[in-house]
Amino acid sequence: MKGPDFSKRIKKLRSLLQDNNLDSALITDRHDIRYYTGCTITGPGFLIIGKQKPKLFLSSIDNHIRTKQADVLFFKDLKEIKSHLKQYKKTGFDEYNMKAYTFIKLKNKNLVPAGKIIKFPRMVKDEWEMKQIKKSIKITAKIFETLEVNGKREKEIAREIEILSLKLNTEKAFPPIVATGKNTGFIHHIPTNAVVLKGLTIIDMGVKFNGYCSDITRMFYSKITQRGEKLIEDVKEIQETIIDEIREGVTFSEIEKFYEKLMKRKGYKVYHSFGHGVGLEVHEGPSKTDILRKGMVVTVEPGVYKKGIGCRIEDMIKIEKMKAKPLSKFIPL
Amino acid sequence: MKGPDFSKRIKKLRSLLQDNNLDSALITDRHDIRYYTGCTITGPGFLIIGKQKPKLFLSSIDNHIRTKQADVLFFKDLKEIKSHLKQYKKTGFDEYNMKAYTFIKLKNKNLVPAGKIIKFPRMVKDEWEMKQIKKSIKITAKIFETLEVNGKREKEIAREIEILSLKLNTEKAFPPIVATGKNTGFIHHIPTNAVVLKGLTIIDMGVKFNGYCSDITRMFYSKITQRGEKLIEDVKEIQETIIDEIREGVTFSEIEKFYEKLMKRKGYKVYHSFGHGVGLEVHEGPSKTDILRKGMVVTVEPGVYKKGIGCRIEDMIKIEKMKAKPLSKFIPL
Repeated sequence: MKGPDFSKRIKKLRSLLQDNNLDSALITDRHDIRYYTGCTITGPGFLIIGKQKPKLFLSSIDNHIRTKQADVLFFKDLKEIKSHLKQYKKTGFDEYNMKAYTFIKLKNKNLVPAGKIIKFPRMVKDEWEMKQIKKSIKITAKIFETLEVNGKREKEIAREIEILSLKLNTEKAFPPIVATGKNTGFIHHIPTNAVVLKGLTIIDMGVKFNGYCSDITRMFYSKITQRGEKLIEDVKEIQETIIDEIREGVTFSEIEKFYEKLMKRKGYKVYHSFGHGVGLEVHEGPSKTDILRKGMVVTVEPGVYKKGIGCRIEDMIKIEKMKAKPLSKFIPL
Repeated sequence: MKGPDFSKRIKKLRSLLQDNNLDSALITDRHDIRYYTGCTITGPGFLIIGKQKPKLFLSSIDNHIRTKQADVLFFKDLKEIKSHLKQYKKTGFDEYNMKAYTFIKLKNKNLVPAGKIIKFPRMVKDEWEMKQIKKSIKITAKIFETLEVNGKREKEIAREIEILSLKLNTEKAFPPIVATGKNTGFIHHIPTNAVVLKGLTIIDMGVKFNGYCSDITRMFYSKITQRGEKLIEDVKEIQETIIDEIREGVTFSEIEKFYEKLMKRKGYKVYHSFGHGVGLEVHEGPSKTDILRKGMVVTVEPGVYKKGIGCRIEDMIKIEKMKAKPLSKFIPL
């Protein structure tokens, strides 16, 4: 199977720019640069997509970059970017990525925030991307399967997850969260020396395969109290109910409100979103007012956090016309 | 040995703010937040240091944060930050870290760029920090010592470096660079399936110990040509000459110019700086117009890159009153 069709992606962006009365885009996020050109840059970069062949401005440390998608130029000073932008009437830039420093230095009235537009095509995954995501999930499944947690320290388990990822020719998508006992009450707990004994343990992890992330959370438990059991049952039920509700055409916010309602009904406080998009980044679109579309990949991760106890279950789903297709449900709880 | 003295750091910043007619600082870089409070945040955060006790605004996903250095508050909307800032007359913010989106949203005439001021105290390392950096270097030395490269693929070696880092209870400070043969001509080469045989190989790596980075490059070689030998000798000589020149009181730019002169004299093109500061980040101050001061830690990494062949040697040094003290020279070439 051949790789991504960059020309198609660039064409899509050009058409979106036109719809929004922009004649160009100034792309600074390295994930977007990778998406549109296939280039993995390590220093600052500016990809400019207008009507002509895209221009990719790099610093000299990225002298390894070779691409057919853009003319590669090396720059030393932001003035060079500023001067190149003069030919455009209205340039959309990525306000979510660009630093205030660059924004102030470029000082250009023709620059308008367009992060949403630049990142829009990335939300819907093509066939090649779906393949990478599925592989990424498969490797995470393999790690969950191999993992021994009983009697081990949170830190040890987190390290083991990272080592397993590397041995399976991938790398972590984010620092693994391993929270046991009281620490399950923290959402982004940082692994400590606490030992996994009885009770609840949250393991939230993912890998990157060919740049594409997975993000899955499973509960590990033994000898749990009735309270713990109730928590797991409730979170499981809430997750299933949300997945049932997701389909093409609804907005992210609608699902968010639905999630809040479900949580409230059971008396739980909402600490974070029901989920987020996953792709070249662990956290990416869709969000908020975005309409869910066929081919998007999002997590569904209801979480309950109380003083001293918590539970989260997280799966990745693909949005289809009439339903949400679970991608990671084969990984046992 | 007790940990860092956060109060001393905050006091230092307050005095710098006063010198610059600022009554407060808005800190957004998580490395700075860690430096001033010891907190490891995972989501967005705003640390506000004025005359009263610092305020740390976090999103709810960071509900694990506990600190004595600041009052922890949870925020949902940037409006809350904007409103809190109203009490200050002039707030210095970190333009190198803040996103254009946040900058535009906060829309506050009293916000002035002060990234240099906020990060200034971090440049000079205290006794506790030096201890972490030395430990970080020691672990990197151990990895270099253990590493077998002959007959292995670049990718394999990079993975092995990461696994060794984890087994030694640390993590990589950045993706290891392993470049062999022709790939040595690329500065930030991304490891491929190329096999290390005869000739030159660049390995550039570092770990993070207690948050503190190391960054060291060594050349591996066997059966090299005269050209390769000459390259190594030249780079070694340039590095020694620069280290001899570094001491308290000279500016970073002066050393930069000196490096450029040395390179030009030997007929080499300059692709990157002679070095950079290292600490909580692999790349941090000092740079450009900064005056080198006692207690700063910088790398010295001359590099020559030609078509098909390259060489870089990188060591970390500590700046002292009359000299630069090498910290990693005990690691053999």
